[in-house]
Amino acid sequence: MQETRRAVLDALSAGPVSGPELAEELDVSRAAVWKHIETLREEGFGVESHGDGYVLDSVPEFGAGGVEYGLSAPFEIEYHDSIGSTNDRARELAVAGESGVAVLADEQTGARGRLDREWASPSGGIWLSLVCRPDVPPAQAPIYTLAAAAATADALDGIGVDAEIKWPNDVLVGGRKLVGILTEMAGEADRVAWIVVGIGINANVDGDAVPETATTIREQVGDTDRAVLTRSLLERFDDLTGSPEDVLPAWRKATSTLGRRVRIETTDGDVVGEAIDVEFPGTLVVATDEGEERVSAGDCEHLRPARS
Amino acid sequence: MQETRRAVLDALSAGPVSGPELAEELDVSRAAVWKHIETLREEGFGVESHGDGYVLDSVPEFGAGGVEYGLSAPFEIEYHDSIGSTNDRARELAVAGESGVAVLADEQTGARGRLDREWASPSGGIWLSLVCRPDVPPAQAPIYTLAAAAATADALDGIGVDAEIKWPNDVLVGGRKLVGILTEMAGEADRVAWIVVGIGINANVDGDAVPETATTIREQVGDTDRAVLTRSLLERFDDLTGSPEDVLPAWRKATSTLGRRVRIETTDGDVVGEAIDVEFPGTLVVATDEGEERVSAGDCEHLRPARS
Repeated sequence: MQETRRAVLDALSAGPVSGPELAEELDVSRAAVWKHIETLREEGFGVESHGDGYVLDSVPEFGAGGVEYGLSAPFEIEYHDSIGSTNDRARELAVAGESGVAVLADEQTGARGRLDREWASPSGGIWLSLVCRPDVPPAQAPIYTLAAAAATADALDGIGVDAEIKWPNDVLVGGRKLVGILTEMAGEADRVAWIVVGIGINANVDGDAVPETATTIREQVGDTDRAVLTRSLLERFDDLTGSPEDVLPAWRKATSTLGRRVRIETTDGDVVGEAIDVEFPGTLVVATDEGEERVSAGDCEHLRPARS
Repeated sequence: MQETRRAVLDALSAGPVSGPELAEELDVSRAAVWKHIETLREEGFGVESHGDGYVLDSVPEFGAGGVEYGLSAPFEIEYHDSIGSTNDRARELAVAGESGVAVLADEQTGARGRLDREWASPSGGIWLSLVCRPDVPPAQAPIYTLAAAAATADALDGIGVDAEIKWPNDVLVGGRKLVGILTEMAGEADRVAWIVVGIGINANVDGDAVPETATTIREQVGDTDRAVLTRSLLERFDDLTGSPEDVLPAWRKATSTLGRRVRIETTDGDVVGEAIDVEFPGTLVVATDEGEERVSAGDCEHLRPARS
């Protein structure tokens, strides 16, 4: 959000304030104040005028203004009611050199998950793609994926959703998928140019609008304030990526993969055994009958404990 | 090169052959034969007609036909007399889903090296960018860079140029740069979509057309047949990337970094010590005063031995 507009919003939320007072406080013209208030109303903020000045009556449930209002993480929000794919748009921004942008949508019409799989994105979800430009080698990109999963699980925990991470980055409730994460990147062999982290949350969505193997926040705990959830996710993600050493501990706390029997389909064949740890930047350590194996990529399936 | 055209070329190079004989042998119309011969001439092949049929009189020095003729590696050549940047064009092809293409130019007008550094690319060079789509995680991308350096050093060895690799991928002669390599990639966090390996060789170029710190093949051993050199480079690169376990041994044989005192500038500060080994996928092991350090990315400088 533009800086002066944010200041106008802060002043309005502090109580009734007149146009001339606002203009003087912010050192802008009265016409500029009117223009900012008009834009805030367009973004969905309820700005009412009374005898003693303007007051902020309501904030938008979602959208750029609704999420940026009170956000303490360095992201500009680009909001779309409907878009083909937030990852596609974020990639476009990344290629153009942008950074610190969060592309957000209420609905996606052409979203894809990992390996080009279909991903349902009905209206009411949180479809979010973050453009980052960290100075790291491509080998470290997976830590962004794990950070996104941990940040999302922690944010969900804050609204009473008991989510668990399946390695590396599926967020499940009761074994059904609530959140999908897709990280894309480009760069030189030893240096990332950009990373786009796409996070799709089945939020205020009917259970029958998503596949049988998936669930939604509405189904679990009822509708949630998406702006609040998005803000806490963005802030947690920013904290974790700012202190990479915190990512694995946060991830371990939220995962249900460690200690489980798993089958990982890799390009070199299946790895079956007990998942015993995760190592930087996201490698799963599996105790198999033949000894420890380290798996950096693959589809993970949680197996039922062997009957004894 | 189109398959039938390659068959025409093979028949022509085997000796005089008449149009009707060719048409019958290849099971195409006589008009089709004429058309292929016409296209070959446009690509620079000297096809002469005598009383007893057509013969191949000369092959083009460079260009798509010149390089593809006799090439036993799965690359189609896209040749440009002049282009802004072969890597830019290769990236465009990669994004469009292409694979197994080698973009080749006699001259580049807007080429860049690592970290967006300038890279002189006068006419007479070998400016080559390969589009690959291997099924590997991004962490393994550096092995393509090392394979390119080793393949280039081996190809240069074949024409009597005693080149040495400076970690990770500069190819030098007598300490001056003969070849620059720039690898770019994009993909998901755990899977590469494409890798573009750019290889720029100062070939039949005057020494004063490149920076003082660089040298050229012309300066070292006189002009070379660029088609022959490009073919042997492509074939060696294809061999090495087909057997990744061969890359490090080939690289070690051609490097002058191992056993040397080096200073590596990394984003976490300088690492100074003796380079003692290279590990998959391209990590340099340096023995410092504080013990062994492993460096995956950085600018490497060869230091003079300490005076004793």
